[in-house]
Amino acid sequence: MTTTWTPGALAERSAALDDADPLAPLRERFLLPEGFVYLDGNSLGALPAAVPPVVADVVHRQWGADLIRSWNDNAWWQAPERVGDAVGRLIGAAPGQTLAGDSTSVQLFNALTAAARSRPGRPLLLTDPANFPTDQYITDSVARLLGLEVRRVPVAELPLFLAREGERVAVAGYSPVDYRTGELYDLAVTTRAVRRAGALMLWDLSHAAGAMPIEVDELGVDFAVGCGYKYLSGGPGAPAYLYVARRHQEGFDQPLTGWNGHADPFALSGGYTPAEGVGRGRIGTPPVLSLLTLEAALSVFDGVDLALVRAKSLSLTGFLLECADTLLSGLGFTVVTPREPARRGSQAVLRHPEAHALAAALTERGVVGDVRAPDLLRFGVNALYVSHRDILAAVCHLREATELGEYRQQRFRRRATVT
Amino acid sequence: MTTTWTPGALAERSAALDDADPLAPLRERFLLPEGFVYLDGNSLGALPAAVPPVVADVVHRQWGADLIRSWNDNAWWQAPERVGDAVGRLIGAAPGQTLAGDSTSVQLFNALTAAARSRPGRPLLLTDPANFPTDQYITDSVARLLGLEVRRVPVAELPLFLAREGERVAVAGYSPVDYRTGELYDLAVTTRAVRRAGALMLWDLSHAAGAMPIEVDELGVDFAVGCGYKYLSGGPGAPAYLYVARRHQEGFDQPLTGWNGHADPFALSGGYTPAEGVGRGRIGTPPVLSLLTLEAALSVFDGVDLALVRAKSLSLTGFLLECADTLLSGLGFTVVTPREPARRGSQAVLRHPEAHALAAALTERGVVGDVRAPDLLRFGVNALYVSHRDILAAVCHLREATELGEYRQQRFRRRATVT
Repeated sequence: MTTTWTPGALAERSAALDDADPLAPLRERFLLPEGFVYLDGNSLGALPAAVPPVVADVVHRQWGADLIRSWNDNAWWQAPERVGDAVGRLIGAAPGQTLAGDSTSVQLFNALTAAARSRPGRPLLLTDPANFPTDQYITDSVARLLGLEVRRVPVAELPLFLAREGERVAVAGYSPVDYRTGELYDLAVTTRAVRRAGALMLWDLSHAAGAMPIEVDELGVDFAVGCGYKYLSGGPGAPAYLYVARRHQEGFDQPLTGWNGHADPFALSGGYTPAEGVGRGRIGTPPVLSLLTLEAALSVFDGVDLALVRAKSLSLTGFLLECADTLLSGLGFTVVTPREPARRGSQAVLRHPEAHALAAALTERGVVGDVRAPDLLRFGVNALYVSHRDILAAVCHLREATELGEYRQQRFRRRATVT
Repeated sequence: MTTTWTPGALAERSAALDDADPLAPLRERFLLPEGFVYLDGNSLGALPAAVPPVVADVVHRQWGADLIRSWNDNAWWQAPERVGDAVGRLIGAAPGQTLAGDSTSVQLFNALTAAARSRPGRPLLLTDPANFPTDQYITDSVARLLGLEVRRVPVAELPLFLAREGERVAVAGYSPVDYRTGELYDLAVTTRAVRRAGALMLWDLSHAAGAMPIEVDELGVDFAVGCGYKYLSGGPGAPAYLYVARRHQEGFDQPLTGWNGHADPFALSGGYTPAEGVGRGRIGTPPVLSLLTLEAALSVFDGVDLALVRAKSLSLTGFLLECADTLLSGLGFTVVTPREPARRGSQAVLRHPEAHALAAALTERGVVGDVRAPDLLRFGVNALYVSHRDILAAVCHLREATELGEYRQQRFRRRATVT
């Protein structure tokens, strides 16, 4: 289905949509470079204005002046739980169930191992063959260590698979948004199907948290992990998070038994006794600078209704698809992201054989999206700082770059962008 | 053995030692608070002056302005190897064998598992019953996952144990410095004994790196890990490091198979193919802010001869013991740290029944050391910024605080200091 909007009408429409946008003032919470359209916030979120003063304080006063006393006096020791709770508010987790720290890969390893250990006699770990690579690699590694098998089952086929072999499944580890296509799956349906089979549901929320309301408690999710640097805008390589539903905390039997997760870490005992509550998920000493940066960044969500964020995100990606239909027609692009709002995450993805070179040409023009091999142009929208005018500008540039054949001047290069 | 120095003579001696100290100018490389004696750099190193401008640049320019392009343009992607090599220079590792990232606990888990996997048929993992808790917990966890057994063998008894059961040992994981007593063990003797048995030597260098010359390549060490926030002064919870001797890299079969360690991470393949070289030890996306802070901090070692650092460190701890002998005589203190220089790390430790309260009283007086349960007062010296005058001042304050009974006013509290 293509629309009949003309370029002029699209310009008017983008302006009207922006003028009516209740979230437009949130853009001021970010320090965005001038003259730049940033559609890669699903890879690295933009810099929140609240971050620099906090970082300066952490470096100069907390580290430089207060030194070791900051573990108490500036509450560094409590940061993993405190920042975890701040993430928890965005994913529908009541306090005391979410921790911040380490990378998504590490949190996934810990959670998946602990989850599988709590379902003895069930030999299967499930993951999506389209899941983000680290999720697949870590699942394979955990299976090898625990003597389990991995089955790669697409999320759409999950109900059927579970009906057949559900009682052999220990844990199903899935991502609600396909990081390449932007397709959004139904968290509620999937979670119900997995739990009905007596298996445990683990979600990797990296591409969803902060972009839409998520209700892990309400849905009965067992475990969740996710990264801090996409829609949470926590900075490059920001600490990840781990959600352990309260009912699983007492039995959370993790392999990464670092001393910070000990019931009495400063007793410095030679044997591991895990802490009560989600604190037992802590591993080693966390990177405080990065962790407190994430905390400062999360203040961009203060007072923000995630339902409005989701509505605007859909408006932005929907508008991008409309613009593509109108402006890119006949230029070799295919829309990959589902058009139905309920099936769309917070990115719009176009397929084009020159995707890499076009992304490079766009960057030259001040429009930053990214590419996923082999031929996907990915445009992520963070509704807190992206406008409909940005979207139109991006598609106009893409049209010009394609029409002018600019991609022919761009040497093919694989950019080291981090999803 | 007590000395006959009088307080006045000690003051003269401290001044003379400082005046003759070739490393004295290095203190300017740190931003130390005024009127403060900081003897807890073995727990959290002081703030290097090179850090704040780098952090500001990383936040404002690299993250804020360059955004996602920084993974290439500001070489974020290469940071784990680059910062790893900078650490490698301090531990005698030729380039390409050291990585920075994650916490010591995580690096230890990865290294120990990979090491044990490369010695099939050998059922034992050895560690010291006095090793830092996380080392013991992680060793237990790895043994459980791999179906191995842990034997806690004090380093002094290691040669005898290896003579008896050496061929059953897969990996020996030890720390060269006892984090409580400050005792230093002989890395060369221990490494030789372990390797002669056909086992693998893994050192946790947290309490040694940056405080003395270490030669992992020359000694034939197999693996090493360590933290970045003690003598490396990399900031609170700074990323740790992992050393994998080149001969072990091809077989390094790690459990934390995050996508950053993949041979071609941006091919985003569903199956894990490890990178060549030490890069395969990478796990998830690293906390860039903390990592580049560590990199900036390591510049404090530029042009510094670690043999001089070691000599000064011994002079400082030796002087502390002398001061204690003279000034604390009859006040209930016992010297715990070995007096022989070759057996002394970079801290001096005194036992006192009121250790906790005395440490609190000292902090009130502007002297910061720390305490290890139940009764050890620990004074760490970083020879790059601690002076002999600092040492004398600390011991004088300790004497006064004890004589005046100030510890009675200090409520007992266990401080959340991080070793």
